Formats: sequence, structure tokens, C-alpha cells
Amino acid sequence: MMRHKLVKQGILIFTLFFTTVAQAQLHQFVDPKIGSEGLGNVFIGPSCPYGMVKPGPDNSVGANSGYSPDKDKAIYGFSQLHVSGTGGGPKYGNVSVMPFSGDLGSIELESLRGDEQVELGYYSVMLQKWTIQTQITTSDRAAFYHFSFQPEEEKNVKIDLGKFLGEPAIPDPDARESQQFVGSEVEVVSDSEVRGYTRIRGGWNNGSAYTVYFAAVFDQPFTEFTSWKGTRLYPGKKIQVDSGDKTGVLLAFDGSNEDLQMKIGISFLSPLKARANIDQEIAHWDFDQTLAETREKWETIFKRVEVDQDAAPELRAMFYTGLYHTMLMPVDRTGENPFWENHGPYYDDFYAIWDTYRSSSPLITLLTPSRQVNIVNAMLQIYKRDGYMPDARSGNSNGRTQGGSNGEVVIADAFVKDLPGINYKVGLAAMLKDATIPPGGNEEKEGRGGLTDYNRLGYVSTDFVRAGNRTLEYAYNDYCLAMVAKGIKRKGEYWRFIEQADNWQNLWRDIEDHGSRGFIMPKDAHGNWVDSIQCAANNGRISYVPYTPVAQDWPICVCWWCGFFYEASSWEYSLSVPHDVAKLVELSGGREAFRKRLDTLFDKKLYNVANEPSFMSPNLYHWIGRPDLSNDRIHRIIDTHYDSSPSGIPGNDDSGAMSSWLAFHLMGLYPNAGQSYYLINSPWFKKTVIHQENGKDFTIEAKNLSAKNKYIQSAKLNGEDFPKAWIEHEDIIMGGTLVLEMGPVPQKWGTEILPPSKSDQEI
Amino acid sequence: MMRHKLVKQGILIFTLFFTTVAQAQLHQFVDPKIGSEGLGNVFIGPSCPYGMVKPGPDNSVGANSGYSPDKDKAIYGFSQLHVSGTGGGPKYGNVSVMPFSGDLGSIELESLRGDEQVELGYYSVMLQKWTIQTQITTSDRAAFYHFSFQPEEEKNVKIDLGKFLGEPAIPDPDARESQQFVGSEVEVVSDSEVRGYTRIRGGWNNGSAYTVYFAAVFDQPFTEFTSWKGTRLYPGKKIQVDSGDKTGVLLAFDGSNEDLQMKIGISFLSPLKARANIDQEIAHWDFDQTLAETREKWETIFKRVEVDQDAAPELRAMFYTGLYHTMLMPVDRTGENPFWENHGPYYDDFYAIWDTYRSSSPLITLLTPSRQVNIVNAMLQIYKRDGYMPDARSGNSNGRTQGGSNGEVVIADAFVKDLPGINYKVGLAAMLKDATIPPGGNEEKEGRGGLTDYNRLGYVSTDFVRAGNRTLEYAYNDYCLAMVAKGIKRKGEYWRFIEQADNWQNLWRDIEDHGSRGFIMPKDAHGNWVDSIQCAANNGRISYVPYTPVAQDWPICVCWWCGFFYEASSWEYSLSVPHDVAKLVELSGGREAFRKRLDTLFDKKLYNVANEPSFMSPNLYHWIGRPDLSNDRIHRIIDTHYDSSPSGIPGNDDSGAMSSWLAFHLMGLYPNAGQSYYLINSPWFKKTVIHQENGKDFTIEAKNLSAKNKYIQSAKLNGEDFPKAWIEHEDIIMGGTLVLEMGPVPQKWGTEILPPSKSDQEI
Repeated sequence: MMRHKLVKQGILIFTLFFTTVAQAQLHQFVDPKIGSEGLGNVFIGPSCPYGMVKPGPDNSVGANSGYSPDKDKAIYGFSQLHVSGTGGGPKYGNVSVMPFSGDLGSIELESLRGDEQVELGYYSVMLQKWTIQTQITTSDRAAFYHFSFQPEEEKNVKIDLGKFLGEPAIPDPDARESQQFVGSEVEVVSDSEVRGYTRIRGGWNNGSAYTVYFAAVFDQPFTEFTSWKGTRLYPGKKIQVDSGDKTGVLLAFDGSNEDLQMKIGISFLSPLKARANIDQEIAHWDFDQTLAETREKWETIFKRVEVDQDAAPELRAMFYTGLYHTMLMPVDRTGENPFWENHGPYYDDFYAIWDTYRSSSPLITLLTPSRQVNIVNAMLQIYKRDGYMPDARSGNSNGRTQGGSNGEVVIADAFVKDLPGINYKVGLAAMLKDATIPPGGNEEKEGRGGLTDYNRLGYVSTDFVRAGNRTLEYAYNDYCLAMVAKGIKRKGEYWRFIEQADNWQNLWRDIEDHGSRGFIMPKDAHGNWVDSIQCAANNGRISYVPYTPVAQDWPICVCWWCGFFYEASSWEYSLSVPHDVAKLVELSGGREAFRKRLDTLFDKKLYNVANEPSFMSPNLYHWIGRPDLSNDRIHRIIDTHYDSSPSGIPGNDDSGAMSSWLAFHLMGLYPNAGQSYYLINSPWFKKTVIHQENGKDFTIEAKNLSAKNKYIQSAKLNGEDFPKAWIEHEDIIMGGTLVLEMGPVPQKWGTEILPPSKSDQEI
Repeated sequence: MMRHKLVKQGILIFTLFFTTVAQAQLHQFVDPKIGSEGLGNVFIGPSCPYGMVKPGPDNSVGANSGYSPDKDKAIYGFSQLHVSGTGGGPKYGNVSVMPFSGDLGSIELESLRGDEQVELGYYSVMLQKWTIQTQITTSDRAAFYHFSFQPEEEKNVKIDLGKFLGEPAIPDPDARESQQFVGSEVEVVSDSEVRGYTRIRGGWNNGSAYTVYFAAVFDQPFTEFTSWKGTRLYPGKKIQVDSGDKTGVLLAFDGSNEDLQMKIGISFLSPLKARANIDQEIAHWDFDQTLAETREKWETIFKRVEVDQDAAPELRAMFYTGLYHTMLMPVDRTGENPFWENHGPYYDDFYAIWDTYRSSSPLITLLTPSRQVNIVNAMLQIYKRDGYMPDARSGNSNGRTQGGSNGEVVIADAFVKDLPGINYKVGLAAMLKDATIPPGGNEEKEGRGGLTDYNRLGYVSTDFVRAGNRTLEYAYNDYCLAMVAKGIKRKGEYWRFIEQADNWQNLWRDIEDHGSRGFIMPKDAHGNWVDSIQCAANNGRISYVPYTPVAQDWPICVCWWCGFFYEASSWEYSLSVPHDVAKLVELSGGREAFRKRLDTLFDKKLYNVANEPSFMSPNLYHWIGRPDLSNDRIHRIIDTHYDSSPSGIPGNDDSGAMSSWLAFHLMGLYPNAGQSYYLINSPWFKKTVIHQENGKDFTIEAKNLSAKNKYIQSAKLNGEDFPKAWIEHEDIIMGGTLVLEMGPVPQKWGTEILPPSKSDQEI
């Protein structure tokens, strides 16, 4: 059934879609608006899983998703590419279309919005200026628009190749993080088809130019058109060739039908490939069919995790929306790489691995390992052709690195979880490239900035920016490298890098702050601790600012990227040693001191729920035998900061990083990415069944779970006593049932066999 | 008059073109075949000055110019892009067209050739298999083909997007220096137009993918066509979309006319831009008009240098062909950059600056400084957008560096010659980037490989390949940087880099070879001289080979790029200190020892005429007050190794590097690139007038010049006695006359005021 509008005395009546659905489907729990207000920055338009096309409304050129929830911000177009949850300078927002009524005399059009409807695979809005309803759904590489105009009003559509997100108000080709216009082209191919492209460079990752080709086809002919170049209109001119100017076309449709449909295909190869993408994916004009197909793609994924059917709908909304957000990116562009042979999988918009390696990659691996194999192989192909794996990548360009070369963690995570079909020798080569060859030139593009220091001194000195988190992350990256080297019997590399995995200790300074001892602190190249950091201050002068464990975000400094830590304080980062928490406990003064340290972190608000560096922190109580305290923290964090409302994600969702953190915890699991186990906490669901790709089910049952019975008393795996608060990936993929007995008071469970740590294993 | 063939009883009669030319024009002296046999590797097809399109025959996939003079090698197509004079793995050879008779059943076509005619702007050949004459001329961005078929035979044309030079016989996406196929597309747009593209990566510079878009239009409709993808033919299928496969189309024309004309436009932006390039440059079907326009473009340049009209035609052929070869590249692609804003000039195919900085850039600066300003500004734009100036660049990608970052020399050459319209502050920033920021990752792409060593030790140690010429070239690059820094009052940089300009002395080892002392020799990172070099031997094992001053090209080593010196021996390179020959003389043991050293170089055949490292060597006698000996050497070199025959260039012409070396010497001048003066030797012409862009003429007269009177006795500049064997650029641009009195025996002229040297100036 077509979801069209009926206009009757000014009242819009929507036919009820859900009436046709016989039984509730999991995708109905997804609410793409979760995270669309506040800091979440999620994309609200329709998308397939990892879908290349992400059409949606743009009402703010400075918004990362193109979308501001502010009702006073007028929509100026619907563009075909977006990212979800990102921060910093925006990317994409290309090939903007806009329906309108009136004449073909202006290229700047905008309207306030009403009656916005956002569902998985579906977006609808009323453009109030002309009372035009715009409905959108999408396939992987083609968007489907249904416009409903007012009777007697003109049916026009603008296709604008000059619009993009993050354009500086005053053109500045050297501006950092803003996108820059390079060129565009439009061709009216027939009376129902337009093709062309827009070419943009820059954006957050400071990437090279990318070209978005499109083909737009309509279900009825246009009778008049005006193309433009720059600000000049050319009625009836079919071609505007690329001369480095902004171009587009205004189309006018005739006929009595109030409705107009458009399919717009996207490609990174050519306009003809964009057209072929339409023909291959949407060879009809049935909007609902495309919508249904997109929902089915998601449903197939969601069905891999069956949660307690009695759980509150809000909880299921949070969970399935979490999966949904996790699987919007990276984007599957297999067959669409314009720089090398398209024989293998290609993914783009790793935005950024710094964010997603922690929980997104492990979640994809757990639910759809075949997908993760393709993603990893794409990363290795990027290494082979571009020279380095990405730590972040967008628009076919690596960049920017925020700290480590966390591709290492992704490779190691795949390796320790035994993902098949990956050449781990190439994986090791890619990791070794990061670890041994300085990227040079632009040290924010890829590889490891400050590597010369790190390999010479065992830490990154204050001669380099972000020395603190670079050192910490490189040490863990080295641990991951060592694990793969060991696994494929490359002992020389193993011994070198397992030793380097302790490098974080070279910046461990025995000072006290807020009653806790030992912090990762800046050290110069001569080995001296430094107490202040040089930075460019807001007054334009170079200043030295005192550096303490609580210093954060350099309020008096201009450069966001130039501090000792990236986006967090030493209080947060000093706990970021995922491979050796036992050593961290020891250096902090033992279990009791470590417990106090964690309590201080949370109680004194030194913990930042809204960013990735602290993702693991609430779980660290596991390593002092107190999973009940991890449990308390995690439940409090989620209850306080997450919900199913539009502002239900407390920070930038970062391509689903926060969403995947949430989804894991709701199931009662949390991965230590790069290592082969999951930490166990109390789930939110009484029962969770993972229907794995290998055909084996893994079930987590939380017996007697209630608000009061929130602690795991004991556990059984396949009927056998399971005293550990962590479980190996292998135990899950073999299938089985983990029964958690719940009760009101913590018991002995999880207090004895602690999760692995490097220093334990060496003993 | 159209140059068509008449077929009469099997005899081809060509109408005589030159009969229509009232008086001899300079372009008629140009013979594009000079350098097409032997090692020259020049391109023989038509081209405009710095022309983007270079259409020509391909009969050898392994030939750098696509062309082998071997008559047994069959032509398999005429492609639209070539480079001239290069070595190593070939580049380009894209969008291959081939006329043929027969049916449309095969995509592999080839024919032996006959009646080849090569002139400036014009190429003609008879394809013997079908007796089809193919004539080609070109504008800047569109090639013009005239095919003459046999009556009663089919008139067919193939457009092949799967052909390119340097394709490995067995596909190997990781092969070094070979070009790799990425994708292609073809679209039959109407019955007289085809568009599409071919996308290739790799080649000599190991570049990223470049896309060559084309539009081909015909002067008559085709009546039948068959497109293909891979090996499968699709009769009548208009579109073959890019799926990573090779595509193309076979076209059949009807009608009684034996002649068929095609214009094919090229672009790096889009097929429509390629079409626009045709329309803008060749808005007609008059082959001769386009040919005449192309010749006029060259004539305008050639007319800037008027040489003795009585000089032997062979000599004038060598001279004007030298100018012609110099100005084929870099290629003017202004408005055609697909990666950034096209507001300023853009040049590509710097192939390589390592070759051309010595004499090509100075020649362009002398004759057409406005052109050199554009080239320099393009280099600075490349620095701003890609991060580094090129030392080599092709297909929109920097790479590969052979030794230094010789962009520094080009910038300094422009600066000391006062070229206007260049932001030298940006120039200094670009040079400082080279000199201070290691390029990292792939150290062959750009910047300075081994820079960490160089900046730490004062030389590149044997830890890095090509340590010898890198050290030498960086030292001169640093001198050039220092000169610009000084000129724009950046004293800090000046003092740092003028000191580094002596770094070559750190590798000067006081050993004897062939009776001379002191050679640039390998040193390890600990400061120890090393007597052998590690290299990968042909037997696949790592070997240590003895290193001596005459060691060259590592005959037992596999890796051409991995020696201590690139493409030459220490005997040659040790003389390569263009900024401080006086110091070189001193270190060699004084004037007499230095004279002996130079004599040994030439007499013992330690000098290689065929490569750039020794370009300056025959002139070095100037610095010991013996310009007569320079004169002897230069005249002997040219008389022995250069002539106007197809094998008249003794080595790879390297984008005109050898040709510009020749042209300068024929005028009696030779630049020391990066410095503001020219060395003076006996010219080959009795009179040379340079009609400068500033409107002022500079005349060189060689009075009484004859085979016997080959030495300059004395000189007068504008009537004043001129005792120096070198002249400042400023003296030339102010206009005037330099009269050289010639005689049979060397005199005092040039023996006292020696050309500048750094160490002299410091004293």
C-alpha cells in the first residue's frame, strides 16, 4: 500500500502503515530519532545496512548529519550522502534535491517543516512553504522519493550540485575541516532523466577530492527545465559542463497527477554506473516494495538476536536501534572504488576506527562475522593500495588519526576470534607498516604520528601533540600486533612488540591527584617529566599551561588536536590499558586503592560518559574481583544517560560506537576488543538468544532478574558451573546456554578467576 | 589544402605540402623523429606546446612513447596520451583508436606500417593490412584524425578503452612500474559520437589512479556498432557501464566517401568536458586549419630565437627540435585538475624534475618566462594541495623521487631570475616542507627520503638507498633554499641551510682512483666509511658488493633504485656540486689536479653523455680558468653524440632534458640552474637573437666563427670589454649585444674572473 497523503480541508491523514503488518517485526522497534537531539548527531533518514546511499533532509550546513532538530531551521534540500553520529567538520551532504512550487526563477529554496515522520527505512516531511509532502525510502545505492504537491500548484524539483555540508560561510580553500567545492556537472539526458556529479574535497578528515555521481529518473516527463552555472540561469540548456562552478537544474512537471516519484542512484565511478545502480536495485516504481525490501534487510540482521519478548518496548527500542546505528557504517562500496581494481570488498567511512574498534567491530563480529570479514579485507586492501590501513577514512581518503593506529585492534580482534577468509600475514604486514614506518608529511592522515619518538624512546615525547594517548594507544596496538605475530609463528615480531606493549608504563608518573596515585603524564624527549604544556592560546600567543591529571580540553588553548591527550583527561586515559589491567591495579597501589580510584573517577565526575576513552572504565572493577561494582556503575550509567528519546544518546554516536556499547551491555556482555573474551554483567533482558551465522544458538538467561535482583549470584554454562565474570568467544560460537542466577546481594561469583591481563599471563 | 592520398594503380602520391608555404618557417626545421631511434624514446606524434593531448601510434606496449622504430612491430592502435623521452615503466597510451576494414567481429587488430610521415604537428602512416592511411594532427586537448580507406572496403573504427602502455603480460596488480587497469566505460551517444573513459593506475611513478575521459565525434554517421565488455561482444549495445572490465566499441560507417574524419577530445574531469574541449578548440572539420594553428603556436615560440640563417639546416634542425622537445612537457592541464579548485594554472607530467631542472626549466625561463611562472605556480599549488612539490609527477600523482627534492632548484632559479607573479613566501614554505618534514610511508613519492639521517648526521647514511646522490642533491637543494630565504630576509633559515649546503663534504673521502683524489663515498650511520654495499643480487640472495668510485649500476644487483648512487658512478657524481665548484677544485688538490681529474673523466670514458648527473661536467674547466677546455669537450661531445638523425640523441631525452642541454650549448650559453648566471662557450651559430617577452632583444654574435676559429678570444657586451666566461641573467634581460671575437688559439678571455662559487663568496 502506497503511503500517500490525502488533503482534505487542510487536514493530512496518513494511512496507517502498521495495520498491514500481521505481527510485530523487530525493525519496528527501531527509532532512528534516538540520538538525533542533543549530542548524538545521528542520521535520521533511511538507509540500508551499511548502505552507500543515505538520503535525508538538510536544514543546517553546519550539522554533521545535515539535520538540526530545531524547528526554526528551514530545510534547504534532501541530499543523498550522510554520515551518522560524527563530530568535527561535516562531510558529504551531496546531490541536493528539493521539490517546490512556483516558477523556475530561483536556485535558493527553503521551507520550514511539519509532520515529520521518521521510521526505519522511511522519512516523511511536509514542506510547509508549498505544502509539499516528501517521502523517502532507499535501497543500497539508490534513493526513492515520493513528492506530493498541492493540486493546481506547480510541480517542480531542483537538483543542486553546489550544495554540501560544512561549506564555510566565506569561501576559504585553506580552511581546516570544512568541505571545499571543486567542481560539478549536470546533463539533462532525456525528458525524465538527469545525470551529473559533484566533486568536493576536505571535511573532517581533510580528504582528497571525492566525486559523487548521480542519475535521477522520474516517473513522468518534465516539460520545462532551467539549468544553471554559478548564479546564472540557462532556460532549456541541457548541459552544464564542469568548469569549476556550481551547477544544477530546475525541472517543471506538468499533468494532473499531484504525485511525482523520483529515483536517484549514486555512484563513485560514473553517472552511468549511478543509473545502473538504480536499474539493478529498483527496477520499478513501487515505493512500498523498496521500503519493504530495505526493512527486510534489517530484519534479517535483527533476527539474529532475539530478546525477551516481555521486555519494555523502550528497552527493545534502545537495543535494536543500537544495532541499527552500529550497522549504518562503515559503508559498503564494493565495486565502487575509483582508485583500484574492484575485485574484493571495499568499505569506506570508517569514521573513525578510533571510535568503533572498541565495541562496534566486536558487535558486528558477534552477530554477522561474514560482514566483519569483508570489512577487514577491505581494510587490508586499503593498506595494499594506499599504503596504510585507515584509522579513519571517508570519501576514499584515509584520515584523520586521533591517536593510535587502531586497525591493529580490529585485525587482532578478527584473529583471536578466528574469523576465516582473512590473510593474516597481510594483516601482520599492515600492522608492521603502522608500527615501523612513520607516515611522514601529514601525521594526521594515517599510521602513527610521533613514531620516531615512540620507537626510540619508548614513548611519544612532548615534541609531538597528543603524546599521551598516542603512547597509550600504540602500546595496546603493539600488544595486538604481538598477539597476531605469535599466532602465526613470527617470533621475532612477537618478542619485540610484546615488550613494547609495556611502553605505557614509561609515562606512568607516581604523583597523587584526588587521593589516587599514578597517572600518565607528559615527558620530554630527554626523559624529564614536564608540568606544563605548550599551546597556542586564544590570544594568538604561545602559552605554557599547567598540566595536571584533571586538565581537559585545554580551555585556554585554541588547538583541539594539540594537547597531551585527545578529548579526555589523564584521569580517564590513565585507566586505558585494556591488555594489562592487573598491572594498572598494581601500579595504582593494589586492589583497594584501585577500587577507590574507580569510585573517585565516577563519583567526582571525572568520568565522561560521552566519549570513547572511558568505554571500558566501568568494567574495570572486574579485575579486582568486584563485578558487582562494575554492574552498579554500568546500570547507573545507562539508566541515567541513555533512553529511547531523541536525546537518548549522551554523546556523538560516532558511527554507532556509543550505540554498540549500549547494545552489548543490554545483553550483559562487553568485549575487550582485540582480545578473545567478553566481560559478563547483568543483562537488561531475561533472555537473549543469538542465532549465529554458523547455525548455533547461544542463549543468555537471567533467572529471576528484577529491579531488586540485579546481581549475578552464580552462573552455569551448558549446565556446568561457570564461576567467571568473563566468557571466551569460543564458548559462544560453539553454541550453548549461559544461565545467570540473579539475586539481590552480590555473591562469590566472578570474584576469583579474574579476566586476563598481560602481566598475569607472563607470570 | 587537404593532405589526402590519391590511389592510382597502387601508387600513392602525396601532394607536396611545402609548396604552399611562401617562405620557410622555423617549425619546418623541427624533425620529431630526432631521438626516436636508439635511446631517445621521444614521442613522434603531433603535439601543441605543453599540449595535453599527444596522439600517436602504439606498436609496442613496452615502449615509453608507445612507438618502436622496428618495422616488424605492428601498430595496434593510436592512443591519445603519451610522454616523451622517458625511461623506466611506461605511462599512458590511453583511449586507443584503430581504423580497420572487415567485419566487427574482433577487438584485437593490428597492422604493419608503411609510408610513415612525421612532421611537427602531423603524423601519417599507411596501415598495410587494409591499405588505410591515418593522418593525425592535434589541438591542445583534442586530436584530429583523417582516415582514408580503400574504395569498396569497409570503413570501420575501433575505440578501445582497455589498451594502455606498460601492461604486464600476465596481470599482476602488485607489479612495480607497470600500469594497471582499473576500469572503463563506453557510451554510444548518437550515431556520430561516442564517449567514455579509461582508468589506470601505476606506471613508472607508481601513481594513484588517473581517469582519461574522451569524446569522439565523426564527420559522418556510423550505421552499425558493436560494443564489448571483457572479451564478449554486444552488437548494438549502446552502453557498457564500468564494472572493472575492459570495454570499447567497434563502429562501421557506410556511404561512398573513402575518407572519414574523427575528432577526439580528452579531459581529466568528464566525458562532457572532453566534448567541450573539442567544441572549443576545433569547431570545424578542416584538418589543415587545425594543423596550421598548431604550427603557428610553435612558430610563435620558435620565433623568439632567431639563429644565423646561413647555418646548416641540420644544425637548425637540431636546435629547433631541441626547443620543440623541451616544450612538450610538463603538460598544461589548467582547468583539468580533478582534485582541487581549477582557479590557477595546473601542469602535470613533470617527468622528472630531476631531469629537467638543470637545463629545461632555465631554457623555458629564458625564452618564455611567463610560461615558467605558470609552471612554478602550478608546483606551488601542488605543494599546497598535495602536501609536497613534485620532484616527479604524472597522472595527477607525485612520484617518484630519484634523489633530491629539486623543486628547490626550480624555485630558486625563478627567484634569482626575478620571475614576477610568484609568491616566494609560499615557495620557501614548500622548500622548507621538503627540507624538514620527512615524507614517510613511501619515500619515493615526494620530499626527501632519508631526511632523518640527513638532518641528524649531515649526510644520508647507508641505512638508506641512494644515500650518495641524495646527500649531494640535498646539499644543493639546501643552497637553493638558503638563497631564497636570504632574498626574502628570512635569516634564520638562511643561516641553517647555507651551512647545510656544505653537507656534501661529509661524504667526501680522501681516496685515490685513476690518479685522482677525493670521492663521494658511502658512510654508515656511525660515521664509518664502508667499502661494500648491501644489495639484493640476481641470485635472490642479499650480497655485499665492493664499492669503488667506478662502481656503476650494480650489474650483479637486482634493484636499480637501491645503490649508493642513482644511475651513475662516484666518478660522475663527485663532480656534482653546482654551488661550490671552487671547493671541489680545492678538495681535489687544486687547479692542475682538477684539470687532470676532468681529463681522466672524459678520456677514460668515466663520463656518461647519456644521463643528467654529468650535464655540467664538461663546463667545469671554467672554474679553473680554462673555458677553452670546456669548449673543446662540449664541441667534441656534441659532434660525436648528437646529430639530426633519428638516433641523434644519445640517451633518454627525458622530457626534453637532453634536448635543452643541446639547445643551450648551440647558442653558446649554459645555465647553472638555481643560480643567476650562464656559462659562455663558443656557439654553433654566428649570430643568435633572443627576442625576449619583455620586448628587448639580446644578441650573441660570434665574429669570425669557423671550424678553425673555435676559441673565444675576447668579448664585448654592448661595446664594453667583457672578460668573463659567464654572464648574468640580468645582463640578458636588459637586452643588448654580446660580441664574441673568435680565433684559432685560446687567449686570456675567461681565465681570470671565474664563475661564482659558494666558498669564494664567503671569503
